[in-house]
Amino acid sequence: MTPLILTQFGFLTLGTLGYIDLIAATTNAFNGALLARRPSHYKHFTVMGVILLAYAGGIGGGVLRDILLNKVPSPLVNPWYLIACFAAAGIALLITLRSEVKFQDGLFQFMTAFSLPWYAIVGADAAVTAHLGYGAAVLIGVIGTTGGRFIIDISSGVIPQQLVRGGFFVLTAAMTAALYLILKEAMGMSVILSTGIAFVFGFGFRLAAQWLGWEEWEPWEPADLKAGEKAHTTLGQGLRAELDPKDS
Amino acid sequence: MTPLILTQFGFLTLGTLGYIDLIAATTNAFNGALLARRPSHYKHFTVMGVILLAYAGGIGGGVLRDILLNKVPSPLVNPWYLIACFAAAGIALLITLRSEVKFQDGLFQFMTAFSLPWYAIVGADAAVTAHLGYGAAVLIGVIGTTGGRFIIDISSGVIPQQLVRGGFFVLTAAMTAALYLILKEAMGMSVILSTGIAFVFGFGFRLAAQWLGWEEWEPWEPADLKAGEKAHTTLGQGLRAELDPKDS
Amino acid sequence: MTPLILTQFGFLTLGTLGYIDLIAATTNAFNGALLARRPSHYKHFTVMGVILLAYAGGIGGGVLRDILLNKVPSPLVNPWYLIACFAAAGIALLITLRSEVKFQDGLFQFMTAFSLPWYAIVGADAAVTAHLGYGAAVLIGVIGTTGGRFIIDISSGVIPQQLVRGGFFVLTAAMTAALYLILKEAMGMSVILSTGIAFVFGFGFRLAAQWLGWEEWEPWEPADLKAGEKAHTTLGQGLRAELDPKDS
Repeated sequence: MTPLILTQFGFLTLGTLGYIDLIAATTNAFNGALLARRPSHYKHFTVMGVILLAYAGGIGGGVLRDILLNKVPSPLVNPWYLIACFAAAGIALLITLRSEVKFQDGLFQFMTAFSLPWYAIVGADAAVTAHLGYGAAVLIGVIGTTGGRFIIDISSGVIPQQLVRGGFFVLTAAMTAALYLILKEAMGMSVILSTGIAFVFGFGFRLAAQWLGWEEWEPWEPADLKAGEKAHTTLGQGLRAELDPKDS
Repeated sequence: MTPLILTQFGFLTLGTLGYIDLIAATTNAFNGALLARRPSHYKHFTVMGVILLAYAGGIGGGVLRDILLNKVPSPLVNPWYLIACFAAAGIALLITLRSEVKFQDGLFQFMTAFSLPWYAIVGADAAVTAHLGYGAAVLIGVIGTTGGRFIIDISSGVIPQQLVRGGFFVLTAAMTAALYLILKEAMGMSVILSTGIAFVFGFGFRLAAQWLGWEEWEPWEPADLKAGEKAHTTLGQGLRAELDPKDS
Repeated sequence: MTPLILTQFGFLTLGTLGYIDLIAATTNAFNGALLARRPSHYKHFTVMGVILLAYAGGIGGGVLRDILLNKVPSPLVNPWYLIACFAAAGIALLITLRSEVKFQDGLFQFMTAFSLPWYAIVGADAAVTAHLGYGAAVLIGVIGTTGGRFIIDISSGVIPQQLVRGGFFVLTAAMTAALYLILKEAMGMSVILSTGIAFVFGFGFRLAAQWLGWEEWEPWEPADLKAGEKAHTTLGQGLRAELDPKDS
């Protein structure tokens, strides 16, 4: 079944960056469904609503990137984006129905880091291919990486993650895009090698930011809000609490 | 006057799908103005604000469709969209100022169904004309149909209708687009006949969903919210209450 | 230093309308940072969040305009938009940290009027250059002028300024775009002269609307909200209070 279906709908002709783009959409859709089910975001969404929101969050970055590059968005041209994103969103939704909250927290934090670098890499590459400058390439990488989250936050009535403390979400995307460009354009590495190194960096930096509680600087904090912010849990604290339930 | 004005601004050269697109924008603008004035959405909008929001909701689906298809949006090219949408929004606004709430409720429910199928049909046709696949055509139909409502909901601080219980809003749009494609592409029917059948189906299904209270499945319901949801009124209950005031 | 940097990144080849577009983005970014720090909008944004939101508000109108005109957005092609918007946003952020609230109020009201006309002019010109009609040109001017504010309002969880009482925000943009088109297209004036007159008109009308408290008509006002609205302060009252502290 699987080998047969993989020959359908142009899956074999996507090309290296096409596969990375599909991975970007799928991992972001998976993470989007987990996000839509979190108490911060869940707003009585229906099953179809969670899947649609995850799909929008999955392809959103790629669609925005291609609109800005004045192309028909790749997630609309190839049906595999729809199939893979709906499947990923469905699996994530099932996980939120069948698993414990602590496992979901850890999985969400992991996937938040794991899904981050892909769109930064594809966006930067696509912008350079479209003859834009390196500054624009990093910008397109950031928009591709963070655009889906913006759509999910706005649709859930939540202030976008880009604007508030969020473990250097935007900075990680920008650095990943810039690193990819340095490796591929300046040092002449292959797409696969540049992608591999940029992915490890972006994934690792984001995971470290979450684990160690690195946060952007907030310009002024009203006194009455400081108490609530102390309750902010880093990924490290969350995982330690998961391994040792007595700790929590 | 009317025959003369209709020869202006390229009204006579719109073509069959152009007229359907104009009907789509106008009916959605009319419905958008009614929506903007409902207690769920009204946020101290000004007269110009209601009309602008209705206009955005009216052309929004078509603009998003054409951006995704990498074209200059048709509502910007032809001035009739502006004229028809502003007129429809103005009439709807007057109705909300001059009529009883129950009449407005019935009219809104009717227009919600009546305005739905048009963009599904035009979007599906435009995507196939742009050489996209059938999956993408249904998707473009759904985005065209539901995009305007998304803009209105987001602008009104309301969770988008696509994501919560809403009488199978998205499913009706997808089925209408798919039916149109089957009739026109697979069975070779004319645009007008395919449109007529797909419209009757989409309008009827949506009206039935509203009347009979068909709703999407919600994955989990916190106990304290169940009481409020029981108060949800179907269109059938609303119309029966209107005919028999003692019932309410 | 400055003369040298100005020869970089294509600054000298922007052309007249390119410089106006850059002024539009920069002044809107400056105003956007001030807006993001106001109590109505500030939602625990980080330093990077304020700058990103200001940047999005600065280039947002131009990006939407170019997407609608089916072009790669000019703020992505030329890196000066990023440099100028980030610098303007940073300066505005510093001002909000180092100055008194009354000075900030006056500066914000002044900049709201000062930043308004530019995108109306560039948008109207770009639409006519793209062979769209005059109605569409005014519409593109309005979208360019007000699009950035829409992004900031939506991202801050605030009802968009276009829809509520806001000193004839949309009308001023439409009149400025229309005046520019009359001067340049119908009366044959140069770009610079048409821009100068349209700017003075748009800036002056907006300032007058704010100073004198001109507001759009609101269709119905629930009785319990009237008290709150009486507290609305015009720019004139604000400035008089600033000059005479005993008054406040």
